[in-house]
Amino acid sequence: MPDLSRRRLLTGAGLAVGAGAAAVAGAGLVRQPEPARPDPAGVVVPFYGPHQAGIATPVQDRLHFAAFDLSTDSREEVVAMLKAWTAAAARMTAAQEIGGGATGTELAPPDDTGEAIGLPASRLTLTVGFGPSFFDKLKLPRPDLLKELPHFPADKLDPARSGGDLCVQACADDPQVAVHAVRNLVRIGFGTASIRWSQLGFGKTSSTTPDAQTPRNLMGFKDGTNNIAGTDGRKLDEHVWVGAEGPEWMRGGSYLVARRIRMHVETWDRSSLKEQEDVFGRTKREGAPYGGAREHDPVVLDKMPVDAHVRLANPAALSGVTILRRGYSFTDGSDGLGRLDAGLFFLAYQRDPEKGFIPIQRALAAKDALNEYIQHVGSGIFACPGGVRPGSFWGETLLA
Amino acid sequence: MPDLSRRRLLTGAGLAVGAGAAAVAGAGLVRQPEPARPDPAGVVVPFYGPHQAGIATPVQDRLHFAAFDLSTDSREEVVAMLKAWTAAAARMTAAQEIGGGATGTELAPPDDTGEAIGLPASRLTLTVGFGPSFFDKLKLPRPDLLKELPHFPADKLDPARSGGDLCVQACADDPQVAVHAVRNLVRIGFGTASIRWSQLGFGKTSSTTPDAQTPRNLMGFKDGTNNIAGTDGRKLDEHVWVGAEGPEWMRGGSYLVARRIRMHVETWDRSSLKEQEDVFGRTKREGAPYGGAREHDPVVLDKMPVDAHVRLANPAALSGVTILRRGYSFTDGSDGLGRLDAGLFFLAYQRDPEKGFIPIQRALAAKDALNEYIQHVGSGIFACPGGVRPGSFWGETLLA
Repeated sequence: MPDLSRRRLLTGAGLAVGAGAAAVAGAGLVRQPEPARPDPAGVVVPFYGPHQAGIATPVQDRLHFAAFDLSTDSREEVVAMLKAWTAAAARMTAAQEIGGGATGTELAPPDDTGEAIGLPASRLTLTVGFGPSFFDKLKLPRPDLLKELPHFPADKLDPARSGGDLCVQACADDPQVAVHAVRNLVRIGFGTASIRWSQLGFGKTSSTTPDAQTPRNLMGFKDGTNNIAGTDGRKLDEHVWVGAEGPEWMRGGSYLVARRIRMHVETWDRSSLKEQEDVFGRTKREGAPYGGAREHDPVVLDKMPVDAHVRLANPAALSGVTILRRGYSFTDGSDGLGRLDAGLFFLAYQRDPEKGFIPIQRALAAKDALNEYIQHVGSGIFACPGGVRPGSFWGETLLA
Repeated sequence: MPDLSRRRLLTGAGLAVGAGAAAVAGAGLVRQPEPARPDPAGVVVPFYGPHQAGIATPVQDRLHFAAFDLSTDSREEVVAMLKAWTAAAARMTAAQEIGGGATGTELAPPDDTGEAIGLPASRLTLTVGFGPSFFDKLKLPRPDLLKELPHFPADKLDPARSGGDLCVQACADDPQVAVHAVRNLVRIGFGTASIRWSQLGFGKTSSTTPDAQTPRNLMGFKDGTNNIAGTDGRKLDEHVWVGAEGPEWMRGGSYLVARRIRMHVETWDRSSLKEQEDVFGRTKREGAPYGGAREHDPVVLDKMPVDAHVRLANPAALSGVTILRRGYSFTDGSDGLGRLDAGLFFLAYQRDPEKGFIPIQRALAAKDALNEYIQHVGSGIFACPGGVRPGSFWGETLLA
């Protein structure tokens, strides 16, 4: 399935991915063991562009997400770190070693930690966001739309898995490539920012390529069938990219909401098929909405139980509210009580959280039948600035 | 790189994997989206055979390892669970749903949790082992060679990540397939055994296919170059498979040592290239042993520092002691102190732990230069019985 979806994704995303790969391969920058044979895992997603990569980009298979806290209130130090991060990110996403593999002396630490040497780019994207506290610490004007999320009923947020001054979302088809990227940004940021929490996601649960099968979440369901397609420029402009409303440095950017959603899989696994299907409002095997026969058949709200997840989260029930989802399944061992610590690391991008995640989660928290089986245990909100152009750095228009 | 190594593995492992795949594909059991096109990720590793799969099997990309504690001292209940586990494992490793997808009624919980529906077998293997406490609880004679591991200097073992009455090692090229398998065994075992600890491994660090490049660990080094090849019957018989010494139910089986080894990656990343290479006794980029030019050049002990890891762990320094390694890198978020909780989940199979892991670890714990950068924080030892034949179940010759 990963190989298949990779193939499909590449077909569906010829525009962004294919062009970049050709350009970079032509420049001889892709370190592939077999350069003559096209290898989907080696494809480079362009780092530079009007938007940050990793938002509308076809969803990669694996995730390493990290939230950081600043250990300084010096804007200069943060700018220096972001410049170094940007330079490293541009190299890593092109499958190049940081420092080009030419360390000045073997008596110095290597510029690159090395565990990705020889691995292809694996569609690595790195996406940066700034949390509300970033602006407070650096005495910068906070965008009006970037507020701490409200408390939702049944939230049980762990402060050690929530918040953060900055975040980095690393997505790649090879987890070693994503982990390597975050680890090197941590290393570069030493003294300026330190990691607050991080999360690995082993399998994507969303697709931004509408021709692909929606991957199943750990409840065994296809959730997120009606996600925004990464190629749907109109919907992206309407619901995801910040436009003329600004601030200027957020133009082409987006607001990211991250939620660590624990699933009580043991309880779920002991509930009947009918209960499970009623909770989602879709059949389990096919993923068809109640009243339909196939996954992509239209959702007819009144065919579903009033508290079905799909009914409550549907744009039609929420005055058109729409978000772009890029969630990943996680399993972080067990919880000491004989239960898997597993669930969904939910990532959603939107132009305005008040017209995206917040009304959706208000509706779900109030009456979603799924609430019996899940709990939100971590949370973060971040302003992800617009794209980076060559010679620029992450957040330059905000900080410089 | 994963795609490449997968291709290589398949070539190098035609014997075990190819034959099984052909047999099962011929029987129409492999659920592949494109059955007409050979898809390496869909290959089925035969579940039945003289040895359990997952030991000499070419190492898959991802791991989910789980240790269980019995909640009963009834041998009958444990036999019933192992029978059900075996039946489920035979299906899951062939990419079949547990229960065949035909639930009796939608008012019952599904027989299969469903998140692997539509995914290929992904070379899934499931390997079961019994810990020392398994025998004590069930009043069974414990094999002489299955003793709790001794304490090694600098061990800092967390009881919550150590021990266990049983273990299941799930390896697959798709993590969703490995996680699904463990989760369903947990579900089936409910009331008889519960999960004590579990560990995800995102990337293999060992290879049992000598023609492949050794994957890099999170220190950026190729460690485990001279591993036993899964096709080297002579070495397997000599060092891995239990023979006539028995007990009978262990014939064709092996002893598994699992160690969770935390790496202090932040400290490592700040040490010089020379220090790093001296610690391993290999160059970082190529992986060549000191005095050699290429990764697979012979290790010449006196070319290396006396405390180099490769020198101390080399069979030549240990009277021929040899183990089969199947370790995986892990990253379990961060530790609350701004450091990644990352390292190596070490898995080693051997015919006799006293002639395998124990003397190696005694030598390493005493003077390995690597000790400054690592710590053993979890540990387990398990007796993995011989292979399962159709109609039999895991541990039948021990328990029936």
